Order: sequence, then structure tokens, then C-alpha cells
Amino acid sequence: MKNKIKEAKKAYFEFLDSDTFIKNSIIKTVAEEILKNKKFILAENKKDIKKGKEKKLSNAMLDRLLLNDERVLSISNSCLDVAKLDDPVGTISEMKVMPEGFKVGKIDTPIGLILIIYESRPNVTVEAATLSLKSGNGVVLRGGSDAYHSNKAFISIIQKVLKKHNINENLVCFVDDTDRKIVDKLLVMNDLIDLVIPRGGEALITSVTKKATIPVLKHYKGVCHIYVHKLADLSMAEKIVVNAKVQRPGVCNSLETLLVDKEIADKFLGKCLKTLEKEKVKIVGCKETVKIYKDAKKANEQDWYTEYLDLILSVKVVKNSDEAIMHINKYGSMHTESIITKDIDAAQKFIKKVDSSSVMVNASTRLADGGVYGLGAEIGIATDKLHARGPMGLKELTTKKWIVLGDGHIRE
Amino acid sequence: MKNKIKEAKKAYFEFLDSDTFIKNSIIKTVAEEILKNKKFILAENKKDIKKGKEKKLSNAMLDRLLLNDERVLSISNSCLDVAKLDDPVGTISEMKVMPEGFKVGKIDTPIGLILIIYESRPNVTVEAATLSLKSGNGVVLRGGSDAYHSNKAFISIIQKVLKKHNINENLVCFVDDTDRKIVDKLLVMNDLIDLVIPRGGEALITSVTKKATIPVLKHYKGVCHIYVHKLADLSMAEKIVVNAKVQRPGVCNSLETLLVDKEIADKFLGKCLKTLEKEKVKIVGCKETVKIYKDAKKANEQDWYTEYLDLILSVKVVKNSDEAIMHINKYGSMHTESIITKDIDAAQKFIKKVDSSSVMVNASTRLADGGVYGLGAEIGIATDKLHARGPMGLKELTTKKWIVLGDGHIRE
Repeated sequence: MKNKIKEAKKAYFEFLDSDTFIKNSIIKTVAEEILKNKKFILAENKKDIKKGKEKKLSNAMLDRLLLNDERVLSISNSCLDVAKLDDPVGTISEMKVMPEGFKVGKIDTPIGLILIIYESRPNVTVEAATLSLKSGNGVVLRGGSDAYHSNKAFISIIQKVLKKHNINENLVCFVDDTDRKIVDKLLVMNDLIDLVIPRGGEALITSVTKKATIPVLKHYKGVCHIYVHKLADLSMAEKIVVNAKVQRPGVCNSLETLLVDKEIADKFLGKCLKTLEKEKVKIVGCKETVKIYKDAKKANEQDWYTEYLDLILSVKVVKNSDEAIMHINKYGSMHTESIITKDIDAAQKFIKKVDSSSVMVNASTRLADGGVYGLGAEIGIATDKLHARGPMGLKELTTKKWIVLGDGHIRE
Repeated sequence: MKNKIKEAKKAYFEFLDSDTFIKNSIIKTVAEEILKNKKFILAENKKDIKKGKEKKLSNAMLDRLLLNDERVLSISNSCLDVAKLDDPVGTISEMKVMPEGFKVGKIDTPIGLILIIYESRPNVTVEAATLSLKSGNGVVLRGGSDAYHSNKAFISIIQKVLKKHNINENLVCFVDDTDRKIVDKLLVMNDLIDLVIPRGGEALITSVTKKATIPVLKHYKGVCHIYVHKLADLSMAEKIVVNAKVQRPGVCNSLETLLVDKEIADKFLGKCLKTLEKEKVKIVGCKETVKIYKDAKKANEQDWYTEYLDLILSVKVVKNSDEAIMHINKYGSMHTESIITKDIDAAQKFIKKVDSSSVMVNASTRLADGGVYGLGAEIGIATDKLHARGPMGLKELTTKKWIVLGDGHIRE
């Protein structure tokens, strides 16, 4: 395994002088070859589906695993989208001439060799490989064992395309061994691997964080809040709350906890919770909420920490913005929070004091998304505070290095 | 301990709406109070020195530990320098109006609660505390046990100043317990601590990286290279090589390995190694080097990886720039490398393909420094690729969060 990773790192170094033209040509050819090899891909996918049925995977799991004509076309098209993105490598910034006469600045560069550990969606294989290629990185892919044959089919196509372009095929490296111990070994190869991105459930992320000596870019849960301030436009607030809770409750940027100022609680909750009732949302509320809305279940301490990912909403009446902000910083997951208000001071304070990756004013938390933010592609949403925070685009797969241009300059 | 860290995190949240004026006032008052309390500080320092002598610490260690009038003045002045730096928090960037009409951008914010683990220089206590304050962060300081009384004296002064400004004193938190197990507990408090910066030797950094579930900003060794290209100005090359090796050999940005193109090896090394000999530099060389310079010791594989931090230099003759770059990417520590050349293509290729935090053209590796780069203050030099890379200034103690300004915008 170590030798395979060494080869991948070598391929990354070789690829460092590739230009945008070559990178896009590889990615576009991958898109074509995926369509040309559709039969092969679907046949390999059938093996995974068959095994999945024998293993009695849930229907939801089998659906995530399944490829068909339409999905293969969509995977191919997503490659073309990546080819269209701006090359994130090579931009020079902050260049200045120092008093001594030499120039110093920064240049955007690839990160290096990236390990991506993911669960059973075969489209992630192609997405991760093409985004890594476009940003000049090498990639080690460790997909879920349920998608083994599908993943391997895609990798073999990508590696053939690399070879055709005279690029070392190890640049996109597949961890063939489905033994879990292999992952533990990879996670301590900090001399060769520069970053690990685990894409999956909380258990996977916790385990990777614990074991890795490599830096980890991670995405925990989203316990998102909306705070309806006393000076809010209440009909706007209701529209936003309903959208944030109901439009797609199973995702990380959906609303989990609603905070409402005391002054407007009767008026706002009285109407809004009835509207949510029509949308089949169950309410878990504080004492004051239960008084206003009799069908609410009384909330316990744990409920405020909970990411329901379902048609359930925690509701708390607060004294003022200080209490709202304290609640968010204590119970939130620092993902996305929004204040609804017409008052500019309240909005400014909320932006300054809420310590989340996305802080919003008069908008639905559901907008926290790489596509909506105009990033072009989304690798994930990071909940850590370093390097990448919130929606991660292609640029987040790069880093910067310093460049110094001298003319015989030395340290005196 | 957990409760103490919880209090520190709470203090950080409270401090989020502090403005530049308050932050500078605190830092300037710390500078004053340090001078006013000089007697107290020196008396506490004497206890550490006494204990250090009993423990038979080396003279170098005792010197690092020692405070006197001059050093206390210099620590006070360094606070005033921090007060003069621009506030790194609050800058808004990349703000754009999306087609749907809402605005999205980023704002520079503090990172959160930062744990700094360091060895026995008491000035680091003040430096770390004031830089964290200026960037709006909370800080947990774990200094070396040899400097226990000196560190505690400084912390008590800082905490008094915080109190006087009505700021929660737990914002600067001191780990009073010198038991090593405490550190292990801190390193897994990823629900409260956002970043750990170990400042010390390789053993400390490796141990922190292994145990931490918190992100680590680290600085390993510097095995810096200079590559003298065949089209170099050889007298400039010699001047730079001598400066990079001799000016201060004990630091991480000094030269450890010299690579020279075959075509010019005889001419360049013949002269340059004699000059280095006058400066008492010992040479460890490849086969070709030994032929040119008889006093060279023959290098073994391990020598190419070695950070001597001493008047010793590894020298290798290479076929061409590809071999030079391959050597650097294989044996280097990705700290700082420089090419000496008049050829623009060779310089461009070197910048693109060398994967180090600082890449230079016609300059001494000794220039890789926060002060020289104009950062104002240097927290350290990071050798990882994420978040901060190379010299870290105050800005590297901040991160960005997304802000979305809507007018009732929802996800359709």
C-alpha cells in the first residue's frame, strides 16, 4: 500500500507543470469515455446491486447505489461542468516590492495528495477525481465496499484517459482493498498524504479525526437556527421559516431550531406554528411555546442540540438578541444561522457575534450551498474553522505558497 | 479543567463584539502594567531560575528562561508593536450580488479558542496573549513547567488588565497544572477548542499531532535547498549560498543542501566550497562533489534528509533542473527553496514544480521570515499546507465566515 501511495505522490509532483488545456482535455475525454462505456459501467453496477440485495441493503441505500442511463449521462455532464470552471491554480496575489528591492507575494497551488473516503454513491468517484484533476491534486479514493465494482469501473476509465494523455495514471489512485485496516494505515501517512476528506456519517468522521495524523477537512452536522427579532417583518419571517424547515428537511442546511423574541412570540408563533402544522411539522418547544401552541411537546436539554433531519422543529422564546445569540453559540453546530429583522443594529450584532460558517440576514438557511453561492461545484460543506469553512468549491482544493523574486538579495 | 475551558470559550463569545479601540487599550495597558510590575516579575522569575539551577538545566536553557530589566522592557515594547498592527477582524471581501438579488460575501473573523503549547520562554506568554487578543481570539496557554512562576506572573497582570476593562478575564486562560496528562485531555476537547499551536521541538509536535482531535497548526523542520542553475550569475550564487548557510546556521530557514548543475559544478564548487571552508563549513557531498573538493565526507542517503542546524552542508551535483526539483520534492521538508538563475524559463518551472511554502528566485532562503515579508508579527512558520503556510502573521489567527444579506430570499 505504501508503495502505491508513493507512486501517487510521484504522479502528483509530475503533474505540477500541467496546464489548463491538458487538464480540461483529460476531463472532457473522461466525459466522452463514460458515455462510450455505459454498457460496461451498468454491467459492473449490476454486480453491486445484486450483492446489495443479497446483503439486504435498504431500498434507500440500493437507490443511492443504482446507476441507469439517465444517471450515467448526468455523471458525464457533471465532468463537462468541471471542465468549464476556471482553473484555480496559478493566480498570483498580494505581490509587493519590499524596501530592500525584492518582490514577495503568493501563488495559488494544488494542495498535494488528497485522500477521499466516502460511502456508497458511485458518482462521487467521478466527481472527486475530476475536481482533484482540475485543481492539480493527486487523489487517493477509498469508496464504500458496496459500490466496489461501479467505482472500479469508473476508475479504470479515468486511468485509461490519463495514460492516453501521457499522464502517470497513479494520479488517480483507487484503494482496491476493502479491508478497513487499510484506512487506518492511510490515515497516518502524513509524510505522503496532505489532506483527508471524509464524506459520510458522523461515525466515519469521528473515527477518521481520531486516527488521522493528516489534516482532516470535515463536515459534522447542521443544527441551523433562525432568530425572529422583535422588529421583523412577520410575514417574511413566516415565509422563510417554512421554507427552511419544509422545503427539504433531510439536509444539513435545513432549519432545526426557531428562536423568537418574547414581544412578538404570541402573534408570530400563533400563526406560524399553525402554518407549519399544515405542512405536518411537529413542534418541540420551551415552556412559553407550549403555552402558545398546545400540541407542542415540551423540550428537554438534549432537544436543543438535535439535528432532526425530519419534519420536527425545536422552538424557544427568548428575552432578547443576547439570549438568542448565546443559545446559538452554545447549542448550535456553527453551520448556518439567520436573523429576521428590519433593524440594522440587530443585524450587525448578529453577524458579529454568531460564530457560524454562514450568517444570514432575512434569508433562508437553505441558501447555504456552493451552487447557490456561485461556487460552480461543491466538494462539501466544512464545519471546521480552518482552511475551508462552509460550502467548499474548487478553490478550496488549492492552497497558496509564497514566492520571492530577488536579484541577489540576502539577509543582512 | 473542562469547566475552566468552558469559561474561556464563553469569554471568547462575549469578546466577539469588542472593537479595535478596546483591544488596543487592553494591549497598551498590559505594556504599561508590565513595566510597573517589573519587580514582581523579576522576583517570580528568580524562583524559576533557582529551581532551574537545582534541576541542573543547561546554561542555554537558563538563559532562555532568564528575565532582566532589558528583557522586560523589550516584552513591554513588543505589546506596543502589536497594538500598532492593523485589526485583522471585520474586513468584508468577495461580496457579490447573486442573480436572485441577495448578496453573498465573506467577513474576516477570529478563529475561536486557541490552545498554545510552548516551551520555556516566558516572553511567549505575553506575545501569544496579546496577538490572540488583537485578533479577537480566546487563548489557553500551556507553558513549560520550568517557566511556571514567570508565566503565572505575566498572566496575573494580563488578567487584571482585562478585569479593569470589564472583559471576562478567562479570555486569557492559564493551565496551572503542570501534569502532562492535562495536555492529553485538552487535545481532545474539539467541542470547545478550535485550534492548537504547539511551539517547540519535533517530539512535542509529533506527540500533539498524534493525540489531537483538534486541528493542529504545526512547524516541523526546515531542510532548505538552493539550486544553482547552469545559467546562474556565479558570484551572486556564491554570495547567496554563503549567506544562507553561514549568517545564522541554527535556524530553520538556513541552507542545508546545495544542488549544482553538472555543467558548472567544477567552476562553481571549486571556488564556493573554499569560501565556505574559510567560514568553517564542513561539506558532506555526492561522488562528484568529493572529486571536486577532497575534504568532503561522502554523503549517505540519510544525509539528504538532515537538518544540520550547524556549519555543515550537503552538496549534490545534478544533471539538470528536473533532477534538482525531484531531489527537493523527495528529500526536502517543503519549507524554503531557492533557484539561482538568469533564465526565466528555469525560474518559472522551479516556481511551478517545487512544492514548498516559500519558493525563491535569486534570493537567500534566510529571507523566509514574517518580519522580512512585512507581516509585522510572526506567530511561527507553518509547514503544513492548510490554512497557514510559511510565515504566519496576525491574519493567520483569523478565519472567514460567509455572510448572506437577503430580503426575504428562500430556496425555490
